Amino acid sequence: MRTQVVIIGSGPAGLLLGQLLTDAGIDNVILERVTKDYVLSRIRAGVLEEGMCDMLDEAGAGRRMHAEGLPHDGFDLAFDGQRHRIDLHGLTGGKRVMVYGQTEVTHDLMDRREATGGVTVYEAADVMPHDFDGEHPYVTYRKDGVETRIDCDFIAGCDGYHGVSRKSAPEALLKTYERVYPFGWLGVIAEVPPVNHELIYANHPRGFALCSMRSNTRSRYYVQVSLEEKVEDWADDRFWDEIRRRLPEEAAQKMTTGPSIEKSIAPLRSFVAEPLRFGRLFLVGDAGHIVPPTGAKGLNLAASDVRYLFHGLRDHYQEKSTAGIDGYSERALRRIWKAERFSWWMTSLMHKFHDAGDFGQKIQEAELDYLVHSRAASMSLAENYVGLPY
Amino acid sequence: MRTQVVIIGSGPAGLLLGQLLTDAGIDNVILERVTKDYVLSRIRAGVLEEGMCDMLDEAGAGRRMHAEGLPHDGFDLAFDGQRHRIDLHGLTGGKRVMVYGQTEVTHDLMDRREATGGVTVYEAADVMPHDFDGEHPYVTYRKDGVETRIDCDFIAGCDGYHGVSRKSAPEALLKTYERVYPFGWLGVIAEVPPVNHELIYANHPRGFALCSMRSNTRSRYYVQVSLEEKVEDWADDRFWDEIRRRLPEEAAQKMTTGPSIEKSIAPLRSFVAEPLRFGRLFLVGDAGHIVPPTGAKGLNLAASDVRYLFHGLRDHYQEKSTAGIDGYSERALRRIWKAERFSWWMTSLMHKFHDAGDFGQKIQEAELDYLVHSRAASMSLAENYVGLPY
Repeated sequence: MRTQVVIIGSGPAGLLLGQLLTDAGIDNVILERVTKDYVLSRIRAGVLEEGMCDMLDEAGAGRRMHAEGLPHDGFDLAFDGQRHRIDLHGLTGGKRVMVYGQTEVTHDLMDRREATGGVTVYEAADVMPHDFDGEHPYVTYRKDGVETRIDCDFIAGCDGYHGVSRKSAPEALLKTYERVYPFGWLGVIAEVPPVNHELIYANHPRGFALCSMRSNTRSRYYVQVSLEEKVEDWADDRFWDEIRRRLPEEAAQKMTTGPSIEKSIAPLRSFVAEPLRFGRLFLVGDAGHIVPPTGAKGLNLAASDVRYLFHGLRDHYQEKSTAGIDGYSERALRRIWKAERFSWWMTSLMHKFHDAGDFGQKIQEAELDYLVHSRAASMSLAENYVGLPY
Repeated sequence: MRTQVVIIGSGPAGLLLGQLLTDAGIDNVILERVTKDYVLSRIRAGVLEEGMCDMLDEAGAGRRMHAEGLPHDGFDLAFDGQRHRIDLHGLTGGKRVMVYGQTEVTHDLMDRREATGGVTVYEAADVMPHDFDGEHPYVTYRKDGVETRIDCDFIAGCDGYHGVSRKSAPEALLKTYERVYPFGWLGVIAEVPPVNHELIYANHPRGFALCSMRSNTRSRYYVQVSLEEKVEDWADDRFWDEIRRRLPEEAAQKMTTGPSIEKSIAPLRSFVAEPLRFGRLFLVGDAGHIVPPTGAKGLNLAASDVRYLFHGLRDHYQEKSTAGIDGYSERALRRIWKAERFSWWMTSLMHKFHDAGDFGQKIQEAELDYLVHSRAASMSLAENYVGLPY
């Protein structure tokens, strides 16, 4: 079996890359370790930059996002009992973000892939990239007990932080950077209308809280918790009490509560692997880097990786130019590090750090006070939140 | 002996406050522990915000500053072998800073005080504020073996970090915040023309460097050093070699070197005391707060404290309003904490932190890259550097 590009991983990064390649006439096969239903059951991010929306349109998978997604022109920062709106639209000269769940993005891209005859192999076990340091890479996997080999020109590792792609890179060439934060996010989904029509990011002495949403009838809420917390100890009532204590009074009073339909605790991590290219193997999205979710950058960064890699591969096939694939790692990393910085900064600004001491706490309060009263500082926050230029 | 306001300390804060009070017809006496010559031998900061220049003008002490000071419209950030200019003037809608040594400011204010008949008692030993929690405070001191008591309405503590004023505040009411940085600045003055007509702040893997100046023929240079370093181990040649290694090649080549006329190592510290008022005792400038020198905020913050306190005292005497003195601490602290944040941020951005790890180093590089390429981020830096509004 032979194709031009093997894509490992059927998350949004792999699907988006696959669709752009397919539409450009470049053969590709996606290998996915689990089932389609399992992929669709993952609950992830839900704030899309305009650049990512444009890419979904380019891949022919943007129709439902435009119909059902919620364009947001701003969000609120809450601290010291007050809410302060960050007017993304006004501060960035007209940009906004789109609230639309990653699960929906995946769904739309899967539908589009099926409609255009793209090949995805689900439940492909023991996927392994081979010989990518030479001219003739290939990927092996086992399905239903049968071992298959796919020869290809390139391998795109879109298989996330725990995937095989990064682990296959030669250790001597790979450098990793990491910061683990001393807390996690306890997240809940409930079929209740969101407390606000835009997101609220709250800094509170008890810890961070985030009021987000999936739709006008489905809320997505988070509170910062210690890493020792167990989700079993958080009955719904305890969660609702806690998040309301961390919001300004007027917001807490408006909050509609109800039974949770999902509840989990996720750790927060910053991680970057360098480089993102090893011969004919490319790392894309979470396979190469992780951000804490505070700035909503994870999915959007995966999309910008896809953009750079797609342009590189297209130029290779259509114009015999290797400039794009040769420059992929450096180009992608420059944007990644800026988003890593932003995500680290916003995480540092909004969370309670018990080891920061009184001085650190006061610096955080001074920065919030400055941020919401300085147009320049608000503009800087806004331009990062809506996404820096490619 | 009786006066309306006793000012402890004859540095620029005490002198500026004294002059504004004198010009407003409010009696005051300055008590200074050391001699006039000793005060004038102290070498300190030299970058004045426009607001501070305006106050020197208001105090009738701005003439020489305008004639001899160097107005600067920008400065350079250097990293990764390149210089990037921060156009303060363009980014702030026309503001600039004035390079004029603190020693000169002190000199001009002393001259003005003498010309207007203001009283300063030098070599006043064992200065002690008393009964400032009541209606009838007084200050005692000893000079030439004679103990003197000055009764007054208010006491202004302008006697710096090590002075008696803050130490006199009731411990139970005083809260302090502090961060000590794991490095110091080795500073040199030499009679050589500065390497650049504006300041250069350099981030380098070997550590921070700053190229500043006192005039067009006198340079003020600094390098970050470990706290274990001893000034005796830094012969001039070693200093010049080190600072040139930390600058972009083209700048290093242009540097004129020569014998140092001053050389010392200073630690870096962030410190804030709260509140800044204890009954009829007010803390002003370094007596209440210290910033690391990276953002050139120390002297300027002292001046903004003086401004708030002067307006408060003037309103008390001229309009029988206590609003200004009642609000002094809160108003001053709000601006102080923003400058503390800025100074901490700029210190964090520009220095080598050996305990920050590889991730911290990369975040610093990403922030510098973002900062010089984002107009919003550059504007935020610039508005802080020239001084936030009062």
